[in-house]
Amino acid sequence: MHKLRLMIPGPTPVPPQVSEAMARPMIGHRSKDFAALMERLQSKLRQVLQTENEVIVTTSSGTGGMETAVANTVNPGDKVLVLEAGKFGERWLELTRVYGADVEELHFEWGRPYDLEAVKARLDAHPDIKAVFATLNETSTGVVHDIAGLGALLKGRDTLLVVDGVSGIGGIDFNPDETGVDILVTASQKALMVPPGLAIVSVSAKAWQVIEKCRSPRYYFSLKKARKSLAKWNTAYTPGVSLFFALEAALDLILDEGLVNVFHRHDLMARATRRAVKVLGLELLPPEEYASPVVTAVKAPDGIKVDDLRKLLLDKYGVLFAGGQASLKGKIFRIAHMGYADRMDVLTAVASLEMALVELGYPVQLGSGVRAAQEVFLGGAE
Amino acid sequence: MHKLRLMIPGPTPVPPQVSEAMARPMIGHRSKDFAALMERLQSKLRQVLQTENEVIVTTSSGTGGMETAVANTVNPGDKVLVLEAGKFGERWLELTRVYGADVEELHFEWGRPYDLEAVKARLDAHPDIKAVFATLNETSTGVVHDIAGLGALLKGRDTLLVVDGVSGIGGIDFNPDETGVDILVTASQKALMVPPGLAIVSVSAKAWQVIEKCRSPRYYFSLKKARKSLAKWNTAYTPGVSLFFALEAALDLILDEGLVNVFHRHDLMARATRRAVKVLGLELLPPEEYASPVVTAVKAPDGIKVDDLRKLLLDKYGVLFAGGQASLKGKIFRIAHMGYADRMDVLTAVASLEMALVELGYPVQLGSGVRAAQEVFLGGAE
Repeated sequence: MHKLRLMIPGPTPVPPQVSEAMARPMIGHRSKDFAALMERLQSKLRQVLQTENEVIVTTSSGTGGMETAVANTVNPGDKVLVLEAGKFGERWLELTRVYGADVEELHFEWGRPYDLEAVKARLDAHPDIKAVFATLNETSTGVVHDIAGLGALLKGRDTLLVVDGVSGIGGIDFNPDETGVDILVTASQKALMVPPGLAIVSVSAKAWQVIEKCRSPRYYFSLKKARKSLAKWNTAYTPGVSLFFALEAALDLILDEGLVNVFHRHDLMARATRRAVKVLGLELLPPEEYASPVVTAVKAPDGIKVDDLRKLLLDKYGVLFAGGQASLKGKIFRIAHMGYADRMDVLTAVASLEMALVELGYPVQLGSGVRAAQEVFLGGAE
Repeated sequence: MHKLRLMIPGPTPVPPQVSEAMARPMIGHRSKDFAALMERLQSKLRQVLQTENEVIVTTSSGTGGMETAVANTVNPGDKVLVLEAGKFGERWLELTRVYGADVEELHFEWGRPYDLEAVKARLDAHPDIKAVFATLNETSTGVVHDIAGLGALLKGRDTLLVVDGVSGIGGIDFNPDETGVDILVTASQKALMVPPGLAIVSVSAKAWQVIEKCRSPRYYFSLKKARKSLAKWNTAYTPGVSLFFALEAALDLILDEGLVNVFHRHDLMARATRRAVKVLGLELLPPEEYASPVVTAVKAPDGIKVDDLRKLLLDKYGVLFAGGQASLKGKIFRIAHMGYADRMDVLTAVASLEMALVELGYPVQLGSGVRAAQEVFLGGAE
């Protein structure tokens, strides 16, 4: 028997209620039933995204959602600022370049938060920056960036704030409207607990004005077309109907649990994971105050190859952690506690990590990490 | 009890084996299991699409697949020829315009096949036409166009042949390689019996040369990126994993039945539907020799409002036919016999149509259409 424990930062495990919804018989997407679903989804998405802006769902991955944000706002030659502190920051760089933007780049060390002083200086030096592209939760480094602080810098400027919230939304308490986010992108397969295949994009009134005037070619990802269809509770093109069923089931689970409780659960799992990892003598990649509630990035223990560790965990215990990406490959591993995950999953992660480390000859005391996590859960730690 | 019989040309009913595959536990998309799935899918897709070209699967609707074809081949100012004889021909027009092509347009009456003489004349008049965009099965009119004839016209020319096979592939016997198709687009939710959410694009060696040089902006739909990932049995961006599971289950069903049998089944259902409709005194939209094996377009009976007919069929019998689109709205209705559909579904369609017509005061003899269809099934007609 090989029972898989999926602990990568997306796709994440799918709750049975969501799988059941996926298996529902197909319906026509121009039907009354689908229109009613679209109307309910709009309300539920706004609650979960904590926004009053219109929310567009497209059938694509999160990257499709990010391209939607770029293709609908960036003309060739437009000056934009991209904040890059990891693989998904790089994705904004690639996308804005593909659309011919004049890209101001700010690079930060992978594993560190944005330096908002540097951002302010760059904004002041270039008042013609039309849009800033940022990342809420940098999945590749386990860092949560200070988007509220970034939003404060942009208050009173015409600049659009575009945020990749793909791996954060549904796990991190984030208020895009208070922050002044104009376009927030997320996707189905992370904390939202739905299989991959849907991108979710909220759009502010200010962003719609820019979108109306944008000249870049786009058709499938056209927000104007999507908005026109949304007004009739429809989609411009055939939607991933089964995934829409699944999305509603997952949003219902989140709203039934209560957003506050969902965010607390993620925070608790993250604190327990960090505490356990530290007790085991391992080091976190990000500074603790910027460590993500949904994914914990841990530096490779001395003398241990990350791929060996991950392979042993998967083959022997069915536990799948993520490795590092790009320049962090081989240097970190990442434990996701995102979406359909609870305290027992954290204990499984820690217990299997302890055993794997012992088997690889790394000195840890079995049970010590588990105990540290348990103490966090019982309120006795920190 | 309201038991839905979905008889629209996509999304189509999903077989239980495919629904079951959708409900499988999530796996990582960078895993060995997913790579093995990608490798099996490539082989099965080539069999079902009847091509030796590489087949790319993207997580999007069929329109996303069509945009993939355009965005990867068309530069602003490139001369292309679009054949338009229905709503999906219009989609090629819109897409090629969005990407700035210099579009030669050939319009044909909706419900009629392409006039290949006119196509030849236009090609001869414009030897600089870089690509021709055509539709195999025009879903909006129920016409199958003579793409083999079109391919013959293009033999020996440099021109690319790009074909929208979204609603045809899996139901119509079509050989893209013999025909000389360079890019064939299809999608999951039609004859392939999978929920919507996947576009499938095959690409010839000749097309890859054009794609390499194309300058139009694309990222999510980049075929170069997709090809690079495919070589490692991977996808460039997070794929709709559940839909990929479903796609394999559906391809297995098709290959187990045998392609020849699948095509025969569709042809038989279409012939039975057409014969029944004619016996009921109704008129087909297309000429019989170009009538689609997957969807039958029927002119509105005199004095009957199509919307009234469709509403009665849905409310009273749970049978959902499609109406007409755009300029054909109110003028036709369409009965799909596509994908997970068999002879009994045709009889259900015809029997419910008979009852609805009687209830609306249209003079038909109950059972006469059913008998006509039965005779086709028993080999006693035509």
